[in-house]
Amino acid sequence: MAGNSFGHVFRITTFGESHGPAIGCVIDGVPPRLPLAEDDIQPWLDKRKPGQSRFTTQRREADCVRILSGVFEGQTTGTPIALLIDNTDQRSTDYAGIAERFRPGHADFTYQAKYGIRDYRGGGRSSARETAMRVAAGAVARKLLNCLVPGGVTIRGAMVQMGPHQIDRQRWDWATVGNNPFWCPDAEAAAQWEGFLDGVRKAGSSIGGVVEVSADNVPVGLGAPVYDKLDADLAKAMMSINAVKGVEIGDGFAVAALSGEANADQMRMKDGKVHFLSNHAGGILGGISTGQSIVLRLAVKPTSSILTPMLSVDRHGNEVEVSTKGRHDPCVAIRAVPVAEAMLALTLADHLLRQRAIDH
Amino acid sequence: MAGNSFGHVFRITTFGESHGPAIGCVIDGVPPRLPLAEDDIQPWLDKRKPGQSRFTTQRREADCVRILSGVFEGQTTGTPIALLIDNTDQRSTDYAGIAERFRPGHADFTYQAKYGIRDYRGGGRSSARETAMRVAAGAVARKLLNCLVPGGVTIRGAMVQMGPHQIDRQRWDWATVGNNPFWCPDAEAAAQWEGFLDGVRKAGSSIGGVVEVSADNVPVGLGAPVYDKLDADLAKAMMSINAVKGVEIGDGFAVAALSGEANADQMRMKDGKVHFLSNHAGGILGGISTGQSIVLRLAVKPTSSILTPMLSVDRHGNEVEVSTKGRHDPCVAIRAVPVAEAMLALTLADHLLRQRAIDH
Amino acid sequence: MAGNSFGHVFRITTFGESHGPAIGCVIDGVPPRLPLAEDDIQPWLDKRKPGQSRFTTQRREADCVRILSGVFEGQTTGTPIALLIDNTDQRSTDYAGIAERFRPGHADFTYQAKYGIRDYRGGGRSSARETAMRVAAGAVARKLLNCLVPGGVTIRGAMVQMGPHQIDRQRWDWATVGNNPFWCPDAEAAAQWEGFLDGVRKAGSSIGGVVEVSADNVPVGLGAPVYDKLDADLAKAMMSINAVKGVEIGDGFAVAALSGEANADQMRMKDGKVHFLSNHAGGILGGISTGQSIVLRLAVKPTSSILTPMLSVDRHGNEVEVSTKGRHDPCVAIRAVPVAEAMLALTLADHLLRQRAIDH
Amino acid sequence: MAGNSFGHVFRITTFGESHGPAIGCVIDGVPPRLPLAEDDIQPWLDKRKPGQSRFTTQRREADCVRILSGVFEGQTTGTPIALLIDNTDQRSTDYAGIAERFRPGHADFTYQAKYGIRDYRGGGRSSARETAMRVAAGAVARKLLNCLVPGGVTIRGAMVQMGPHQIDRQRWDWATVGNNPFWCPDAEAAAQWEGFLDGVRKAGSSIGGVVEVSADNVPVGLGAPVYDKLDADLAKAMMSINAVKGVEIGDGFAVAALSGEANADQMRMKDGKVHFLSNHAGGILGGISTGQSIVLRLAVKPTSSILTPMLSVDRHGNEVEVSTKGRHDPCVAIRAVPVAEAMLALTLADHLLRQRAIDH
Repeated sequence: MAGNSFGHVFRITTFGESHGPAIGCVIDGVPPRLPLAEDDIQPWLDKRKPGQSRFTTQRREADCVRILSGVFEGQTTGTPIALLIDNTDQRSTDYAGIAERFRPGHADFTYQAKYGIRDYRGGGRSSARETAMRVAAGAVARKLLNCLVPGGVTIRGAMVQMGPHQIDRQRWDWATVGNNPFWCPDAEAAAQWEGFLDGVRKAGSSIGGVVEVSADNVPVGLGAPVYDKLDADLAKAMMSINAVKGVEIGDGFAVAALSGEANADQMRMKDGKVHFLSNHAGGILGGISTGQSIVLRLAVKPTSSILTPMLSVDRHGNEVEVSTKGRHDPCVAIRAVPVAEAMLALTLADHLLRQRAIDH
Repeated sequence: MAGNSFGHVFRITTFGESHGPAIGCVIDGVPPRLPLAEDDIQPWLDKRKPGQSRFTTQRREADCVRILSGVFEGQTTGTPIALLIDNTDQRSTDYAGIAERFRPGHADFTYQAKYGIRDYRGGGRSSARETAMRVAAGAVARKLLNCLVPGGVTIRGAMVQMGPHQIDRQRWDWATVGNNPFWCPDAEAAAQWEGFLDGVRKAGSSIGGVVEVSADNVPVGLGAPVYDKLDADLAKAMMSINAVKGVEIGDGFAVAALSGEANADQMRMKDGKVHFLSNHAGGILGGISTGQSIVLRLAVKPTSSILTPMLSVDRHGNEVEVSTKGRHDPCVAIRAVPVAEAMLALTLADHLLRQRAIDH
Repeated sequence: MAGNSFGHVFRITTFGESHGPAIGCVIDGVPPRLPLAEDDIQPWLDKRKPGQSRFTTQRREADCVRILSGVFEGQTTGTPIALLIDNTDQRSTDYAGIAERFRPGHADFTYQAKYGIRDYRGGGRSSARETAMRVAAGAVARKLLNCLVPGGVTIRGAMVQMGPHQIDRQRWDWATVGNNPFWCPDAEAAAQWEGFLDGVRKAGSSIGGVVEVSADNVPVGLGAPVYDKLDADLAKAMMSINAVKGVEIGDGFAVAALSGEANADQMRMKDGKVHFLSNHAGGILGGISTGQSIVLRLAVKPTSSILTPMLSVDRHGNEVEVSTKGRHDPCVAIRAVPVAEAMLALTLADHLLRQRAIDH
Repeated sequence: MAGNSFGHVFRITTFGESHGPAIGCVIDGVPPRLPLAEDDIQPWLDKRKPGQSRFTTQRREADCVRILSGVFEGQTTGTPIALLIDNTDQRSTDYAGIAERFRPGHADFTYQAKYGIRDYRGGGRSSARETAMRVAAGAVARKLLNCLVPGGVTIRGAMVQMGPHQIDRQRWDWATVGNNPFWCPDAEAAAQWEGFLDGVRKAGSSIGGVVEVSADNVPVGLGAPVYDKLDADLAKAMMSINAVKGVEIGDGFAVAALSGEANADQMRMKDGKVHFLSNHAGGILGGISTGQSIVLRLAVKPTSSILTPMLSVDRHGNEVEVSTKGRHDPCVAIRAVPVAEAMLALTLADHLLRQRAIDH
C-alpha cells in the first residue's frame, strides 16, 4: 500500500535512506532448501557499485551485504530473508545547500508536497541508493530461477543508446558488455561514447540513454491475465526504476507503423515443440510468456543534477537558482543496467511461483 | 494473485469471457455518498462500443450496464459495486475454425500452454471484450475524482499516430477528437487516415497506432514510492491493455537524447503556487504527481486477425495456416483510446484514496 | 482493503445487499481443469437455504445459482468464476419501520456511523444473506480440495450447544446430524432442543449456540507462519461470520486450566508415519497443519431481532424503542453451521494453493 | 503471502530467528510527521523482556531497538520504518539435543514437514522471540493512535486466569497490574498465583492462562465488512500469537447461553451522543467499532517445554522421548499480555488508516 514492496509470492520490501544508518530488504516467499549465501549476492552488488569508473558517481560505498535471517546451514528455510547494507560514505554536509531548495527534475518538491517533510540528505528515500537492495534481492531471484527452471534463466542487460548515439545491432556481442564502462554490446559504439561522455562530464552536464534487458530460457506460461500480465508487471517494474520515462517490449513503439502481416510471429514445429519464426512480441502474448526470449527496453532521462544553474523555488516559496556541484553520474542510464536486470529477475521469480500455485 | 484485479483501495475485479453469458466487474473501496447511477456509466460504454463506424469490429453489443449492488437511493453506500453486462451478440459459430488452431499474435497458444484448456470462442477471457468493464469501472473512477477533487479531473485521450502517419501537434484541437472515427485531434490527419485505413481494411490487413492520454488538474502528491510510483502503476495499467507494446510518460523515449539542461522543468512561483515552465516529466517526479498535467503515450500493435494466411500450429502439434475472416478492427488502437482513459482514471482514483489514508 | 474479499491465492470477492437485485461472488485463482458445474454448488445452497423448518426465517428464496464465467465445457479454465443468485423474495415493506431506527445488536448504528448512509432494507450488506455466497464459494473450494488432495478432505459441522443445553459427546453420531433441524449430532439432545426452541420462538425471543466444524484428511504442512498461521486465518474466517463472538481450536479455552503434561499430544510412529496419541491442538502446531483432524468451535450470539421492545435511538438522535415482528431465526447458530463449513473449506483451499507455490 | 506481514495500510513485516544474528521489522504506511524516537519503543520492549522475574525464561536479552530508517529529525517521514534488535544471548548449544527430535506441542514437526528444513536453534522462526518485534511495532501503532485520535486510545492488558484460578472481577484494579509479575489486576489472586506458579515451576511443569486486553476511546466506525470485520481481524491477530488457542470478544462463548433480551446492548442518548447501557458486544457490531471499549480475551496453552519426558519421534522416524531442561517460562500467558496489547494496537492503527481512505 505504501509502495515499498514488489511482487506477490516472491515479495520484497525495501527500506532505508541514502544517508541513514543502513539500507535493507526483506524477501518473503522464497521456497525452502535453495542454496544461498552472501557470496551469491555480493558480486551483483559489486557490479552495480558506484565509483568504478570516472563515469559514475564518486561516492564510495563498500556495499557489503549481510544476510540476517532465513538461511540456515547454507540453505533457505522458507522464512523471510533479511538483507542489510550499512551506509558508510554519507558526507551529509554535501547536501546542506539543498535542504530548503527543490532541485528541478528531482523528487524534492513532490516529496515535500506529499509528506510535508523529507529527508533531504542525498535525496533520502528517493535516492538511487535504494536500487542497491533491488540488485541484492535480484540476486536471490536469479538463484531461485536457476534452481527451479531446468537449464536456468539467463538475464542480461546492455546499454543500446547514449544521448543521440545508438549502437549498431549488427555488432552486438554480449562478450563486449563487460569490457567497457557502459555495458555497451558494441565495441565501436563504446569507444565513441567514451569521448562523448567525457565531454558531457567535463561540461558538468548529463545525458539520457536507452537500456535493453532480456531473459532467455523463460518457461512458457508465466504471467497472470488480465491485469497482472507479465508485460504489465515488467512495465511497472522498469518504470519504478529512478529516472525511467518509457518502457517497451519486443518491437515496442515501432509496432505503431507495422501491418498485421509484418508484426506476426509465425509458428512452426521444431524438435516437437512450437517454434516462432520471429520475436516481434518480445516473448509475451496475451500477457503470458511464449518461451521465446523476453526483450525489453527502457528510456532513462539525463541526471537532473547538473552544474548549470536552473530556476527553482525553495520550500518557503522563494524563487531561487539551483546548481549541483556534488558527486554525480553524467549518465545514470549506465547504472540502470544492473537494476533493470534485477527487476526482470524479480518479476520472473514472482510469476514462476504464482504459476506453481495453480499448475494443472 | 490471479490477475483479474486492479488497484489497492479503489479496487476492481473483472470477470467474464467474450462468449459467455455475461461480463462483469466488482468495484470495492468506493467511498460512500457519491452520487451514482447507470447513466453515469452508460455514455462511456457507448463511446467504446464496437460497430459504430466501418473502422471497428461489426460485432453489435448493446453493452447495457446494470448496477447490481452498492448503490442505494442514488448514492454509493461504501459496499462493493457490482456491474453486469449481458453478452447478446455471441455468434459462437464464427470461431469454430480456431478451436484447435493458434492464431499468431493472439493469446491462443499461451493460454493453452498456461492452463491446458481455453475458451476459444472469441478469445474467451483474452478478448478485448473485457475492456468494456474497464470503461464501466473507469466511469465510476471519473465520478469519484470529480466529486473529491475540487474542480474535477479532466481525463482525455486521442490517437496521435496511425501506422506511419503522425498528427501535427500544432493542429491539436480537443474539439476535433469527437468529430472523426479515430479520436484524432488533428482534422487534417483524420481525413488522411480515413483513406489510409480504408485501404488497410479492404486489404484485410491491419495497422498499429499510438494513443495519448492526459489528466488535467491532478492534485500534487499522488503516487507511492518506491515500487508503486504513479508512473509505474500507470505503465502497468496501460501495458495491461490488449495489444499495447510500449508506454512512455512525458517526453518518454525522447529523453534518451536529451541533456540535463534540456530535460529540466524549471520552477517559478505564480499566484502563490509552484509553477513549472515546461512539462518534460509528464507531470510526475520521483513517482509522485507534480500538479501538472499527466501525459502518457502507448503503442498499440496491429490487430493480429488478418486475411493473409499465416503459418501456425494447432494444439496437437500439426503445422497449419490461419487466416481470419470474421468481424475485426483494422486498427485496434482506435478502441484503445477510451480504455486508456479509463485505466488512467482508475489509477488516479486508487492513488487519491491511498493518499487520503496517510494525509498529514 | 474494503473487506469484501477473502483468501490470497484462492480468493473470493462477494457483493450484494439483502434486498438488492442480486448477490454474487467472484472466485479468482481456481486452478484450471477442475470439473465444475452448478450441480456441484446448488446442493450446498439448498442445505443453507432458509425456510426449511419452523426454526429458521420464513423468507423464501430459491437461491438458484448461475455460473457466469470461468467454466468451459464442464471444466474450470483458470479465469475468474462468477456466481450469481437473483434475489426474489424481497418484501422491502417489511423493513420500512427500521429505516430510521437502530436495532440493538444489529449493524444499523455502526454502518450509519461509518458510511453516513446505509441500505436499511433487511440489513443491506450486513445481512446474513451474504453468507449464501460463502456457501456457494465454499462448494467450489470443497471441489478443489477433493480434486487436489488424494482421498479428498471431509469437512463437516454440527451444533453442539443451544442456549444452556450441550450435547453429550459420547452420543456423537455424524449420521444424526442431517436428521434434525439443528445439525445436532446427538439425537437425544436434538429432541430436547426442539421443545426448548419452540418455547423461545413462541416467546418471540432468541437464543445463542455453539457450532463445531472439523476437517479430516488435511495434508500436513498447510499454514503460513507467522501472521497467516492456519489457526489465525481460521479464527478470522469464523469471526467474520455474522453473530460469531468467539472461536477456539482444539481444546480451546479449556487449555487455560491444563498443565503442559495434560496438554501434550505425544507422538509415535504408525505405518511409517507420525501418529499423534491425542489431538488437544486441534490439528495445528505453530500455525501449520499436523495432518490430524482440524477441529474448531464458534460461539454464536442470539438473534438480535426479538419481539420485546428494546431501548434504542434513531439516526436523528431521538430515543426510541425497537421490536422486531418480521421473519427471523430464533437461533441463528443453526444456519451458521453450513457457513462455518464453507469458511473452513475456503481457508484450506487457499492455504493448499499457497503451499503449492513454495513446495520444496 | 508467506505470512510474515500484518495489516494493510499500516503494515508490518517481521524477520529473524531466535538464534540468528538479529530480529527486525519493517513498518510501512506510517503517516508522515508523527514524532518518533527509540525512546517511544524501548519501554514497551522492556516490559515484555524475559528474565525479569523467576516466572519467565532466564534468557537475558538486552532487546535494545534501533530505528534504521523512516525517521528524520525526530519525525516520521512517510517512508518505511525499519527496526532492528541484535540477538545477544544465543547459547546455541542448549538446543543441540533437539536438532533431530520433535518436541511435542512445538512447531518442530510441522516446520520440518512444511519446509523440509528448519532452524532448530531455539525454535528458529517459530520462537516467541519474534513477538519482540510485534511489541516494538505495537509501540509505533500506539504512537499513531495517540497522535491521530483526539484524547488518545488507551490499550491495556491483564491476565485474568492462571490454570484453574480466575480473578475476582469485582477486585479489578488497573493500578495493580504492574505491581505483580503476572499483570494480574486482582491483588489477592496475584498473591495466590505466586505460590501456585512456584509449585508448577519447581515441578518442571507448566500451566495455561487467559489474557484480557481492551482499548478505550476507540473511534466509532473502524472495521471493514464483510471479511475484514474489526473482530475478525482481531481474532486473527490474537490467534497468531504463539500458544493462543481461543479468542473471544465481549461476552464471547457465554453468549451461547444468552437470550436475545439478555444479550442486547440497549442505547440511549447522553451528552448528544449515542450511549450504550451495556457492552456485551465488546465494542463491535457488524464488524465495526461502536465507540465503546473493545474487550477481548485469549486462551493461552501451557508451555510445551516441560521436564517430564514425553513420547515423540525424530526426523528419521525413530520413536524417542523428549524432555526440556533449558530456560523456559512456566506460564507463557504472562508474556502474552504485552504481545496481545501490541496486536490490538496494530489492528486498530491499520483500520484507522483504512477508514481515513474512504471517510465521507
